[in-house]
Amino acid sequence: MTDGLPVPDLAHGTGVEVGVSGGSYEVVVGSGLLARLPTLLPNNARAHRYAVISDENVAPLYGSAVLEALTSTGVDARLYSFPPGEASKTRENWSMLTDAMLDDGHGRDSCVVAVGGGVTGDLAGFVASTYLRGIPVVQVPTSYLAMIDASVGGKTGVDVRAGKNLVGSFHAPRAVFADSDTLATLPDAERVQGLVEAFKHGAILDAAYLEWLTTAADMLLAVDTETATEAIVRSVRIKADVVTRDEREGGVRQVLNFGHTVGHALEAATGYAMGHGTAVAAGMLLEAELGERLGITEGGTRAQIASSLSRLGLSLDSVPSVDLEAAMGFLASDKKARSGRPRYVLLRRLGEVEDEEAWSREIPDSLVRDVLAEIA
Amino acid sequence: MTDGLPVPDLAHGTGVEVGVSGGSYEVVVGSGLLARLPTLLPNNARAHRYAVISDENVAPLYGSAVLEALTSTGVDARLYSFPPGEASKTRENWSMLTDAMLDDGHGRDSCVVAVGGGVTGDLAGFVASTYLRGIPVVQVPTSYLAMIDASVGGKTGVDVRAGKNLVGSFHAPRAVFADSDTLATLPDAERVQGLVEAFKHGAILDAAYLEWLTTAADMLLAVDTETATEAIVRSVRIKADVVTRDEREGGVRQVLNFGHTVGHALEAATGYAMGHGTAVAAGMLLEAELGERLGITEGGTRAQIASSLSRLGLSLDSVPSVDLEAAMGFLASDKKARSGRPRYVLLRRLGEVEDEEAWSREIPDSLVRDVLAEIA
Repeated sequence: MTDGLPVPDLAHGTGVEVGVSGGSYEVVVGSGLLARLPTLLPNNARAHRYAVISDENVAPLYGSAVLEALTSTGVDARLYSFPPGEASKTRENWSMLTDAMLDDGHGRDSCVVAVGGGVTGDLAGFVASTYLRGIPVVQVPTSYLAMIDASVGGKTGVDVRAGKNLVGSFHAPRAVFADSDTLATLPDAERVQGLVEAFKHGAILDAAYLEWLTTAADMLLAVDTETATEAIVRSVRIKADVVTRDEREGGVRQVLNFGHTVGHALEAATGYAMGHGTAVAAGMLLEAELGERLGITEGGTRAQIASSLSRLGLSLDSVPSVDLEAAMGFLASDKKARSGRPRYVLLRRLGEVEDEEAWSREIPDSLVRDVLAEIA
Repeated sequence: MTDGLPVPDLAHGTGVEVGVSGGSYEVVVGSGLLARLPTLLPNNARAHRYAVISDENVAPLYGSAVLEALTSTGVDARLYSFPPGEASKTRENWSMLTDAMLDDGHGRDSCVVAVGGGVTGDLAGFVASTYLRGIPVVQVPTSYLAMIDASVGGKTGVDVRAGKNLVGSFHAPRAVFADSDTLATLPDAERVQGLVEAFKHGAILDAAYLEWLTTAADMLLAVDTETATEAIVRSVRIKADVVTRDEREGGVRQVLNFGHTVGHALEAATGYAMGHGTAVAAGMLLEAELGERLGITEGGTRAQIASSLSRLGLSLDSVPSVDLEAAMGFLASDKKARSGRPRYVLLRRLGEVEDEEAWSREIPDSLVRDVLAEIA
């Protein structure tokens, strides 16, 4: 994707390369990146004009500053915003943002710049992916979740009546600039939600990283810049390695779904009353339990994950009461189901995933029901 | 895309291979293909279930027959339909079809089968492209336009307030099955509209083919099966060759836009009161005139194209009166404009495109205005 373009200036950041079909892109993590966008954007995603997209919370905090920095250096840019929150990740806002850009005459030589959290990245990415059949997007994540998880992998999309993220596309960004300074304005609850994905990366592929995260949890929640940068870089490296090997989720990329099969069902069964991170944390614990009962996951693994997650203040007690039949129903309609059967990623032990049955496997409903009864 | 899958059985059809990133797909043209879909579909796009999509005109003609053929041989399939016509190529129908498929529980192992004309192919292709971030689509075109033009290239999308095809994606089909028997039910006016694209293929890249089309026009309008099949195969070969060399429209693929820069502006300026083919025919004549006035196109080329198109009953007289300023305005907002300037594909002579300035070029507004005044 960046063939022939200069590589990012890494003087003030750490770059991680992500391979995608047709090229690669750089995820740059560091302090002070936002102020350098007027140089970084044209160098990494040359465009006639830029469409900066932020939600209405982030627009005054960072979106406007990015816009002013761009226009004051002679770069043509416009700012587009939408109401904050997961409830805004809709086809309606996707249409509204697209139509606003069309009205302003953005052409194929425009580039979308998504400044914000995971919702903004997904929504703005889907706008870019479908605008005039696809224009480039640069991701500027401002939350732990967006930096740690959403910045790598190119997933874009919206939520619909039937569930979250069911409509969308894969659209790799031209570059990702994760400015760790922006985490300071992230609400406490959202810090926890995003860090869960880092703990997941440790649980599936790097036990030493999980141990480091457990020790560093307080510093991460307080957004100590150096500690936060290290976590983001380590998580991005882990995820980039997986995604580079499997861009479209047919193989090894499935391991990133650890905790998510059960987690998504819990979220849906509670009407999305709980945070995504809370649901994934519960999902990891219950999927570890499933693995232990099947004799696939080493005994004690669930307890170790529970001990780590407790440092983020998360446990099964964080989950609201769930209707068991509703949860089983949502499992059956899981997006990643095959032949109508949901699939689960199981650990062998901390830091190691079972890889024998194509990275994920079916599990008898009766066992799943028994384990889920714990939180019903 | 078809790695490891058996190649189509060509006993009753001619196959043309189209190269796309990550593989290739086959366009099979012939008689009796519809009846063979229960074998052709599983062999070329294996899926757990099929979602057959047709408009409400084509559903009773062919959609239901395809559905019955599939289900009677034990293949799991459902039929989805939407109101016919370009006015149905909307985000609303895209949402409606997607939600209906989600309600029926189609998973990532489902495949969309688009049975119908260009609108169906574009709309159903966009559904497939964004359903759970992308599932396969098989195109079963039933009109000249869909067989000759839309079946190759992977363009999908919908129309929006600001114009046609402004939202969409590139999503190559797993296979294309063009059953020439279905052309018999195509209304006369639509035959003309689709054949214009074949004449365009001749005009830009194959003067002998244009000459053959001119001679064969009556047989093509009457849908003589053998003649129709030959035209479709020749056009598909020409377009496949171009698209294989340039999947995403950065280079040589632009030559396919001959007649379309002016054509799209005429369509828009008349509120889409004219057919697409009528507009492209007028666009070819006016863009040939532009080329001749600039001294790039050989003198007499416009007259030769006019003589060929007259065999389809098309001329500038087919175009309703157009507001000149409105047309100039739509030209300025053309989807393929760069730096806010529309670009034109010009011929050197019949069958040969000017290729010096990156396959397309800017033209001074004053000259465009002079030439367009002819139909204002």
